[in-house]
Amino acid sequence: MATDAQQACFEAGIKFGSLYHQFAGTPVSPSSTRSLEAAMAESIENQPHCEAVDVSIRDDRVADAIDHENGYTELTGSLMDVRMRIAYEGVTVRTRMAMKDGYPLMELVEVVDGDRSGSGDADSSPGADPNA
Amino acid sequence: MATDAQQACFEAGIKFGSLYHQFAGTPVSPSSTRSLEAAMAESIENQPHCEAVDVSIRDDRVADAIDHENGYTELTGSLMDVRMRIAYEGVTVRTRMAMKDGYPLMELVEVVDGDRSGSGDADSSPGADPNA
Amino acid sequence: MATDAQQACFEAGIKFGSLYHQFAGTPVSPSSTRSLEAAMAESIENQPHCEAVDVSIRDDRVADAIDHENGYTELTGSLMDVRMRIAYEGVTVRTRMAMKDGYPLMELVEVVDGDRSGSGDADSSPGADPNA
Amino acid sequence: MATDAQQACFEAGIKFGSLYHQFAGTPVSPSSTRSLEAAMAESIENQPHCEAVDVSIRDDRVADAIDHENGYTELTGSLMDVRMRIAYEGVTVRTRMAMKDGYPLMELVEVVDGDRSGSGDADSSPGADPNA
Repeated sequence: MATDAQQACFEAGIKFGSLYHQFAGTPVSPSSTRSLEAAMAESIENQPHCEAVDVSIRDDRVADAIDHENGYTELTGSLMDVRMRIAYEGVTVRTRMAMKDGYPLMELVEVVDGDRSGSGDADSSPGADPNA
Repeated sequence: MATDAQQACFEAGIKFGSLYHQFAGTPVSPSSTRSLEAAMAESIENQPHCEAVDVSIRDDRVADAIDHENGYTELTGSLMDVRMRIAYEGVTVRTRMAMKDGYPLMELVEVVDGDRSGSGDADSSPGADPNA
Repeated sequence: MATDAQQACFEAGIKFGSLYHQFAGTPVSPSSTRSLEAAMAESIENQPHCEAVDVSIRDDRVADAIDHENGYTELTGSLMDVRMRIAYEGVTVRTRMAMKDGYPLMELVEVVDGDRSGSGDADSSPGADPNA
Repeated sequence: MATDAQQACFEAGIKFGSLYHQFAGTPVSPSSTRSLEAAMAESIENQPHCEAVDVSIRDDRVADAIDHENGYTELTGSLMDVRMRIAYEGVTVRTRMAMKDGYPLMELVEVVDGDRSGSGDADSSPGADPNA
């Protein structure tokens, strides 16, 4: 059997892949970023073990990406920052999507096993964003 | 060349296919219907010639469609009513998606050619919904 | 009521919007273009009144779009050429997606009303691609 | 820091969420299942650390799901079986999607840490499908 921490990380990955591929390609402009952010967060929060999702679509990046007169572009990972918190059987996983080398990288920020604090499976690095 | 009315109907179809296939499959529950409706309407309104999009996701249908303990379902045509108004070169096209024989049917409600009122290409059937 | 030619154009637009927004964002590399082309064409051909869909994902454009070491990119309109033939009540509509000013434009190639050849609703411009 | 096994499980989840939400909603009929299976597998195999993806869309379930005269339905988790193998830093993760209580459940089949055989993070349950 996989450990609870591994199951929690698997669940965290599912949420990220779901959010990205459900909404990538959505027409977006600076005037529709707020409603899209809200829908993305609330829809993924419906999924099991998903406690919180924060999506920030960068208006400035959206504006820069609009390269034709129609005034909109399509949502891609480079236009947004995403943070999620997943909880599974006492384990809390924080994840984020950040740009790295011009590529949106989904990554684990920390995995905290409430039942085994300080174990090799846990992490409380001060660098972790408490708001994630 | 296609007529302006034909071009307007082609544009109307693009918006409907886009809205449906971009958002079908999105996790949805009665608590996330409003934000999803807003994002769907605002994102498609970004597309060329799209003047208005109205999406109504039926909370009662969503609740009925939730068939497992996780408390959410996936968006499909049977859970929502959609109306759109497209304008192209003086032609206004009204469309809607309504359930027919248990299948969500996308249909033209009316095609009004402002430049050729009363022509064979136009329609002002009283049945058309002025709010569409 | 809308004319058969207008209904045919509406159906043609639905197919294009569906194809684009169902598959935009799909991970693609030169090694997976053929299978994606086939799936896109066969899935959309399932839709009503859709007689033929031809999708050509350009391997060279895909290779050029791969901007990170992971060796793949996401499908967008700029990487493919699409042609479709829709038939509705005796009217045949040919459409295509082509790049215009760096933007993938979906357009009507011709609308041929078999019942009213030569009418204002029909077009047999020699410029139209018979393979479309 | 998360362990390699946790990172591997996170990557496995990303692939599953991506596959599901990229392709859910795709029009499918018994005549287009093979091409869709191939495209789904090959596209997701492009993603980092994804060694193998096997998608089996059940023709019989697709046929049963076609509830209207148009002769096709939309892809959902209940119509397919999926297995994946992810490899990350010496850890191999096998996952599958199977129906449970009428709901398509994505689950970890096994997590094998080649560097720490027999550790609490590893699993070689005979029930695991070697073809996964």
